[in-house]
Amino acid sequence: MPDYSRFSFDIHARDPGSRARCGTLSTPHGSLPTPNFIFCGTKAAIKGLTIAQMREAGAHFMLSNTYHLMIQPGAELVEKMGGLHKFCGWDGPMLTDSGGFQIFSMGHGSVADEIKGRRTASGERQKSLMKITEEGASFRSYLDGAKLFLSPERSIDIQRRLGADFILQLDECTAFHVDRSYTARSMAMSHRWGDRSLAEFERGDDGWQALYGIVQGGVYPDLRVESSSYTRDRPFFGTAIGGSLGASKDQMYEVVEMCMSHIHPNRPVHLLGIGGIGDVFSGVRNGIDTFDCVSPTRIARHGWALAEGVPGERLNLRNARYREDAGPLDEKCGCYACTHFSRSYIHHLIKVGEMTGMVLLSIHNVATMVRLMAEVRQTISAGSLDELEKRWRTE
Amino acid sequence: MPDYSRFSFDIHARDPGSRARCGTLSTPHGSLPTPNFIFCGTKAAIKGLTIAQMREAGAHFMLSNTYHLMIQPGAELVEKMGGLHKFCGWDGPMLTDSGGFQIFSMGHGSVADEIKGRRTASGERQKSLMKITEEGASFRSYLDGAKLFLSPERSIDIQRRLGADFILQLDECTAFHVDRSYTARSMAMSHRWGDRSLAEFERGDDGWQALYGIVQGGVYPDLRVESSSYTRDRPFFGTAIGGSLGASKDQMYEVVEMCMSHIHPNRPVHLLGIGGIGDVFSGVRNGIDTFDCVSPTRIARHGWALAEGVPGERLNLRNARYREDAGPLDEKCGCYACTHFSRSYIHHLIKVGEMTGMVLLSIHNVATMVRLMAEVRQTISAGSLDELEKRWRTE
Repeated sequence: MPDYSRFSFDIHARDPGSRARCGTLSTPHGSLPTPNFIFCGTKAAIKGLTIAQMREAGAHFMLSNTYHLMIQPGAELVEKMGGLHKFCGWDGPMLTDSGGFQIFSMGHGSVADEIKGRRTASGERQKSLMKITEEGASFRSYLDGAKLFLSPERSIDIQRRLGADFILQLDECTAFHVDRSYTARSMAMSHRWGDRSLAEFERGDDGWQALYGIVQGGVYPDLRVESSSYTRDRPFFGTAIGGSLGASKDQMYEVVEMCMSHIHPNRPVHLLGIGGIGDVFSGVRNGIDTFDCVSPTRIARHGWALAEGVPGERLNLRNARYREDAGPLDEKCGCYACTHFSRSYIHHLIKVGEMTGMVLLSIHNVATMVRLMAEVRQTISAGSLDELEKRWRTE
Repeated sequence: MPDYSRFSFDIHARDPGSRARCGTLSTPHGSLPTPNFIFCGTKAAIKGLTIAQMREAGAHFMLSNTYHLMIQPGAELVEKMGGLHKFCGWDGPMLTDSGGFQIFSMGHGSVADEIKGRRTASGERQKSLMKITEEGASFRSYLDGAKLFLSPERSIDIQRRLGADFILQLDECTAFHVDRSYTARSMAMSHRWGDRSLAEFERGDDGWQALYGIVQGGVYPDLRVESSSYTRDRPFFGTAIGGSLGASKDQMYEVVEMCMSHIHPNRPVHLLGIGGIGDVFSGVRNGIDTFDCVSPTRIARHGWALAEGVPGERLNLRNARYREDAGPLDEKCGCYACTHFSRSYIHHLIKVGEMTGMVLLSIHNVATMVRLMAEVRQTISAGSLDELEKRWRTE
C-alpha cells in the first residue's frame, strides 16, 4: 500500500439536493478547500503572470504538464533544480498529469487545444504519435523530432522527478470518433497501465506524492461503470474522470454521472480539463471536487473577461462598446484589474496588442474563478446552488 | 509667461569633477530625485507589466508617446477618461513627447525602433510621412491609412488632453544622413515651431503642465550652440536634447557636450531616447538629469537581462550556459525576479517562449536601471563616478 499519511481529504458538508460536497484536501505543501480550481501552468508558468500575481488573485492550486516539461527543460533538470515547486516558485499544492493526454490528442493531429503551439515551419500540423503498444507509446518531440517513449513506469518516474504533490497514472486518451470495441480494449489496457503505474509508484514511494487513477470508458455506461469500479478497488489516493466525455455539454454531464455512483466515495474527484462557469455548477452537483482548464488564462489572451451574470459567461473586451466605458471589467470583482483599471483602458490595450492587457485580463479571470469556487463552497454549506447559478449564468 | 508654480527643479549636489548633479524635480504628481530614468509606456502601458510591478521595482517616472496615443485610442478618449494618469493608473510624474519623433523616423521608412510594429500585410514597411511644411507635417495613420496632420498647436492640444506633467514642443527630427544646410533650415523651423508651441501652451495654460524645449542642430557645433541658446532664452521649463546625435556613441557624447555650456543651467535637462548603462554614466557627467529609452523592457522581451559588471552590460538568458544555473539573474539585485527565480528557470521560460519569462526579465531590467540611477545619485553626492562606472561596466 502506498504511504498517503502526509495527505488527507475530509468531507465536511454536503448539499442535500445533489452530490455536491465541501472538503479539505491536504498535501505536504498545504491544504485547500474543495470544490476548487487548478490553474494551468503548462510549462511551469501561468502564461504572463507571476506567482505573486497568482497568490494575490487568490489561487490555491496549480498544475503543470508532464508532456511539455519532459521535452523542455526535461524532468532531470527540474529535479536537479530542486523540483517543480522550487523551480517555478509556487509553494502551494501542485499536480502533474501523466503526459498521455497531450501525446494522444496531439498525436492524432486533432484540434485539441494543446496542439496550438505545435506547427511545422510551413504552418501544417504533424501527427507526432508513432505507435501505441501494450508497453507504451512512442512519439516524436515537437521540439526537434527526437523519438520519445512514454510507458506507465516512465511517466511515474518523470512525475516523481518533477515532484508535484499529486500525480496521475498513464492512460490512453482515445480520440472522440473511436467505436465501442476500440474504447473497451483501450480501457482495459489503461487499467493494466494503471496497475503498472501503481506498482512503479509504490516501488519509489517516499510519502511525498499521491497518485490518482483515471476513469476511462468513453460515452458507454457499462464501460464507465467498469472503469469506475477499477479505480475504486485500487489504492489510488484520488479519482480523475478522463477520456472522451462526449459530443456536447449535456452528454459530458451524463458521462460524469455514470461514474459517480461507482467510484470511491471518500476520495477526491478531479474532472480533467473541464472548467467553464457552467461546467463548475454541473460538475459540483455531480460530486466533482476539483477542476482544471486552460480557458481562464487562454481566453484572457484573446481579449475575453469572465464575468458574473452575462450571456456566454464572458465579455469580449475587443468590442467597441467598451471604448468609452469607465467602469471595471466586473463590478462584483475585487481583483487588481477591476479595482485599478477601466474597461475603456483594457479595451485599448487589447486593441493595440499590449501584453499588459492580456496580463490584466488573466489576473481578472483567475480571480473570477477563485471567487466562483468560494461562493460555490459557501453555498453548499449554507444555501441553494440553483440560486447562485442563476446569479452567475444568464442565457 | 507660463505658470510653473506647481513645478520646481532644485539642484542640491554637484560632482566636483564633471557637470554631474543631483536634484529634485517636483510635479503636481509628486517629486523625484535626479538623475533618473523615465520608463517608456509607449501606448499607455509598460509592455507586459502592471503599474503595481513598476512601483515594486522602484520606478519614479513614466512616459507615453503622443504619436501612438493620438492614433489609438485618441487624445479625446483619454481626456474623457480623466487623462493619462487616471487612464493608465500611474499616479506619479509623467511625460509625453510631441509625436514628432515617430512621425519623422517612421515617415522616412527608417529602421527606427519605433517602426517595428508598423508593417503592411505583406511585411513591407511603408513610408507614412506625406509632407512637411512650415505649418506642420501630414502623415498617414499606421492603423487605417487615414490622413493625419500634426502642427505645433495640434501637438500641444493633444498633449494637454493627455494631461502628462511634462510635455514637449514639436520639432522636426531630421534623418541621420541629411546635410548641414538641411539641418540648419530644419533647426530654424523647429525654433519657429518652438515659439508656436509656447504660444499655444500659454493660451491654454492652467498650471498643471510644464513645457520642454528641444535642442536641435545635428552634429554641427555652431548649430547646437545656436539651438541651445534658443531654448535658453525662451520660457521653457526644461531642456531636451534631441535630433541626430551622430553615428557613434563617442559622437553622441560630443554632441551632448556641445550643448551643455549654452543651455539654461538651472533647468532640468532630458536626453531623448538614450539610456544604456554606459550612456547614463556619460550623460550624467555631461549634466543630463533624465534619460528615457525603451531598451530595458524591449531587450527583456528578447531574453536579455541587464547586469552589473558584465561585458556588453547584459546577459543573454537564451544561452545554454544558464540551463543548470541555480543562481539569480544578478546577485547584486534585490528585485522580485532575482529573489524568487533562478537563471535556469528564466532560461527555460525564454526558450519555450513563455510570456512570464519576458515579464520577469522586464521587472529585473526596470529594477536594475532604478538601482543604477540610485547609485549614481549617491555617488555624485559622496564619491567617485569613475569607481562606480568601473563596477558597472566591464569591457
